[in-house]
Amino acid sequence: MNTRKGILFVISGPSGVGKGTVRNAVLSKLDDVQMSISATTRPPRNGEVDGVDYFFTTPGRFQQMIAAGELLEWALVYGNLYGTPCEFVSSMLRKGKDVLLEIDIQGALQVKKKMPEGIFIFIAPPSVEELSKRLCGRGNDSAESIQLRLSACQEEMDHIEYYDYVVVNDRIENAVEKVRSIIIAERCRRKNLNLG
Amino acid sequence: MNTRKGILFVISGPSGVGKGTVRNAVLSKLDDVQMSISATTRPPRNGEVDGVDYFFTTPGRFQQMIAAGELLEWALVYGNLYGTPCEFVSSMLRKGKDVLLEIDIQGALQVKKKMPEGIFIFIAPPSVEELSKRLCGRGNDSAESIQLRLSACQEEMDHIEYYDYVVVNDRIENAVEKVRSIIIAERCRRKNLNLG
Repeated sequence: MNTRKGILFVISGPSGVGKGTVRNAVLSKLDDVQMSISATTRPPRNGEVDGVDYFFTTPGRFQQMIAAGELLEWALVYGNLYGTPCEFVSSMLRKGKDVLLEIDIQGALQVKKKMPEGIFIFIAPPSVEELSKRLCGRGNDSAESIQLRLSACQEEMDHIEYYDYVVVNDRIENAVEKVRSIIIAERCRRKNLNLG
Repeated sequence: MNTRKGILFVISGPSGVGKGTVRNAVLSKLDDVQMSISATTRPPRNGEVDGVDYFFTTPGRFQQMIAAGELLEWALVYGNLYGTPCEFVSSMLRKGKDVLLEIDIQGALQVKKKMPEGIFIFIAPPSVEELSKRLCGRGNDSAESIQLRLSACQEEMDHIEYYDYVVVNDRIENAVEKVRSIIIAERCRRKNLNLG
């Protein structure tokens, strides 16, 4: 009664909302979830391991993966290419392993097109004011960059209709508990079970 | 962003599966859920309070409620009538309060017809053998009655397709944690939120 296909959980939300923190805490609380591993053309940093932190790859190979449709999503960030290999995610799902993918909203929309059966969780700020405070608090963004992110956030909130769940990150413990509950609940959905 | 209509959660399953124990434990862990209160023609027992344990009512009034369609479901049990008043549930939902209703499978199917938007959770035994052991272990059922319940269970498992979630009650703590997670998750569903 418990054999089932894995489920892809996509955690997304505006920049600065704390989705990376939520993901890490959820992973530490549920050990039977596999984090998605990205491919990147960025060189490994000290201590980073290929196939664990990233799949390190060349720009040429990355372009091939794009052309062959082998990426669930990809983006160019500060001159480096980053993307999510379909095959890694699909092979985990086939084995019955759930996969957690944390990604920005543009990436999530790309994934939604390729894997609409995934469960999409939108991490929302309690308010735009609060998000603004957090971005300023990080101290590593200029006033201009913060303004840019805030207008992006307003626009990104319009994409909320593509998501299955909305979790307001008012306090990190609350948000983590909610995402954890969503994962446990989805595993109990009748349509996700192999009955009989 | 947090104002929303209440959600009706229906916990159901075969006799002896432990759904009453699950319901009580879930209620003790989530204080913002209202248990549904049944109407009954059975006289109050010592300490039972009208409007808290049951709505105590006369057979005549109960028949009126049936005729007027004022009950989500009803059944005759050992000569007494029991039913779930629509109005109590609906008024809680309108106030944004979630309602938990624990009921047998026949009752759940009646509720499904009147409130298909409810969330239906099937509590399943780990196996028919295990259910048999539990019914025998209770000690208050004859071998014949147990046999009757077990064949009923087989038939009841066919109704699982009407349910949104299936929770296997292998260990009570696990089942309670899953039902609790389902309630928390459903509260985060985008379609259950009043956004904007």
